[in-house]
Amino acid sequence: MTAHVFDQAIALQTLGEGRYRGTTSPAYANMVGPFGGVTAATALNAVLQHPALLGEPVALTVNFAAALADGPFTVTARPVRTNRSTQHWVMEITQPDAQGAEAAVLTATAVTAARRETWGTDDATMPAVPAPEAVGRPNMVALVEWVRRYDIRIAEGAIPTAWDGGGDASRTTLWVREEPARALDFASLTAMADVFFPRVWLRRATRVPAGTVSMTVYFHAGAAQLADTGTGWLLGQAQAQGFRNGFFDQAAQVWNQAGALLATTHQVVYYKE
Amino acid sequence: MTAHVFDQAIALQTLGEGRYRGTTSPAYANMVGPFGGVTAATALNAVLQHPALLGEPVALTVNFAAALADGPFTVTARPVRTNRSTQHWVMEITQPDAQGAEAAVLTATAVTAARRETWGTDDATMPAVPAPEAVGRPNMVALVEWVRRYDIRIAEGAIPTAWDGGGDASRTTLWVREEPARALDFASLTAMADVFFPRVWLRRATRVPAGTVSMTVYFHAGAAQLADTGTGWLLGQAQAQGFRNGFFDQAAQVWNQAGALLATTHQVVYYKE
Repeated sequence: MTAHVFDQAIALQTLGEGRYRGTTSPAYANMVGPFGGVTAATALNAVLQHPALLGEPVALTVNFAAALADGPFTVTARPVRTNRSTQHWVMEITQPDAQGAEAAVLTATAVTAARRETWGTDDATMPAVPAPEAVGRPNMVALVEWVRRYDIRIAEGAIPTAWDGGGDASRTTLWVREEPARALDFASLTAMADVFFPRVWLRRATRVPAGTVSMTVYFHAGAAQLADTGTGWLLGQAQAQGFRNGFFDQAAQVWNQAGALLATTHQVVYYKE
Repeated sequence: MTAHVFDQAIALQTLGEGRYRGTTSPAYANMVGPFGGVTAATALNAVLQHPALLGEPVALTVNFAAALADGPFTVTARPVRTNRSTQHWVMEITQPDAQGAEAAVLTATAVTAARRETWGTDDATMPAVPAPEAVGRPNMVALVEWVRRYDIRIAEGAIPTAWDGGGDASRTTLWVREEPARALDFASLTAMADVFFPRVWLRRATRVPAGTVSMTVYFHAGAAQLADTGTGWLLGQAQAQGFRNGFFDQAAQVWNQAGALLATTHQVVYYKE
C-alpha cells in the first residue's frame, strides 16, 4: 500500500535524537517553495515522532524565516521543558545557505499536553452556509499545484474573478477536505488551517505578492475527536482584522461538519504595496 | 528622575551578546509569580535592546513553560535569520531548576521588520462603547498587585460579582491605560494585550484556576503611531472561541481612542475542571 501523498510530503527520516531529514514534495508546490501549511505540518510532525513526546498538540506557532528551497531540509525538535501534564517544544527547519552553512528557514514552538475531561463549550459556533455539495466545484482556480491536493468549496468570499480593485470585505467561508480522502489528524489539520488564499487579494480585488510570516494554531480537538471527524468535510472561516505597512493578519476558525470547533488559527502575512 | 515602575519591571542588564539579567518586580505580582504580560514584555525587551535589531516588532509569541519564581532570571535573544527587511528571533527565559541547572521558564519567537508605506485599512473597527470617564472606576477588584498598575474601565463583560455558575457569554470590552501614565510603546502594548481576566471566569461565573500557556501579539502599529497614542486610553476587546479539555482560547483586539487598530492578540489558557 502506498502512503497518502500528504504523508509522503511530511515524512521524516530520523538522523538522531530530535533530528530529522525531510524533503519538499512537488505535489505541494506553491508559487515559491512548498505550501506553508505542509511545512508547518512537517515541523509539528517532528514533535509527534519524538520519543519523548508527552500528550497531544495544544498550540503551535511557526515563523517562515526564508523561502524553503526545493529539496532536502533538516528539522530539529527539542523538548525544553516537561511538566507533569504539559511539555514545551522548540523546533527549527534549516537548509544550507549560500555559504553552505545550515541556516534557519523556519522557527517554531509548540505546547503539548495530556488532555483531560473538563467542563467545555464552543463560543464560536459554525456559521450557517450551504452544504458542500450545494456549493459545487471547482470554484478555486488552481494557480499552484498544492491547491489540487484539496477539494475546496468556497461558500463566501471567493477569489475575485475581476481584479478591479473593487473589494470591500475580507471574509472567506469554505469547505475543505483532502483529495484523495485521508483521515484527519493534527498534521493535516495544521496544513488545512493555512488553506485560505491571501486576505489582501479579496479585500482589494488586487493580486499583490503575499506570504505568511508567522502562523499560530490552537488545537481545541484531541486525537479521538479528530479521528471521529475522519475523512469528513471541514468548514473554515477566515477574516483579516488589519492591513498596514506591508503586513495584515488573519483570524480563522475550523469546524467539522457536525459543528465541533476543531481549531482556531491566526497568521500575519507580508504583502507588497 | 526615577524610571516608571513598568520600565523598572522590564529592565535588563546586559551579560553578553544577546544575554541579559532581569528581576521580577513585586509591583507586578500575580497569584503565582509575576503578571505574564510583563514577562512577555521583558522577552520582547531583550530583542529591542539587542544591537543587531532590524526594524520593529511585527509578531511575538511567548510560551509560559513554568511559573517564574520571584527573583532574578536570564533572558537570551538570538537573531536566527536576518533578511533584507525582516528578522527572525528566538528568545528564552531561564531560571535555575531544583538541581541548580538553568531551565526554560519561557520560550518565545519574534519577527521584526522595517515598516514601509503601503495601502492599508482596518477591517476590525472599534466597537461603540461609553467613554472611559462614563464607565467609571473601580470596577475591577484588585485581586492581585499588578492590577493596580493599570486604570481599567470595563464597559462590557465585567468580572462576575456573583460566582453562581450563571455565565453565558465570554466577551469583555474595556478601556485601559497605565497608572501612573506612561507613553505607549511596543513593550507596554505587549503587556496590555494580556490585561484581560480569564475568559472562563466570565463564561461560567465560576472562579477556577487558570493560566496563560501561549500568547501571540501581532503589532499593526509602528513606533510612530504608538508615540502618537502617547498616554491615551486603549480599548481592548477579548472573546473566547472554544473551551475544552482544560484549555480555552482568547482572541482580542486593541485600539487607541482615535479608533486605530494597534494590535491583535490571541492566547490559549489552561483551566482546571
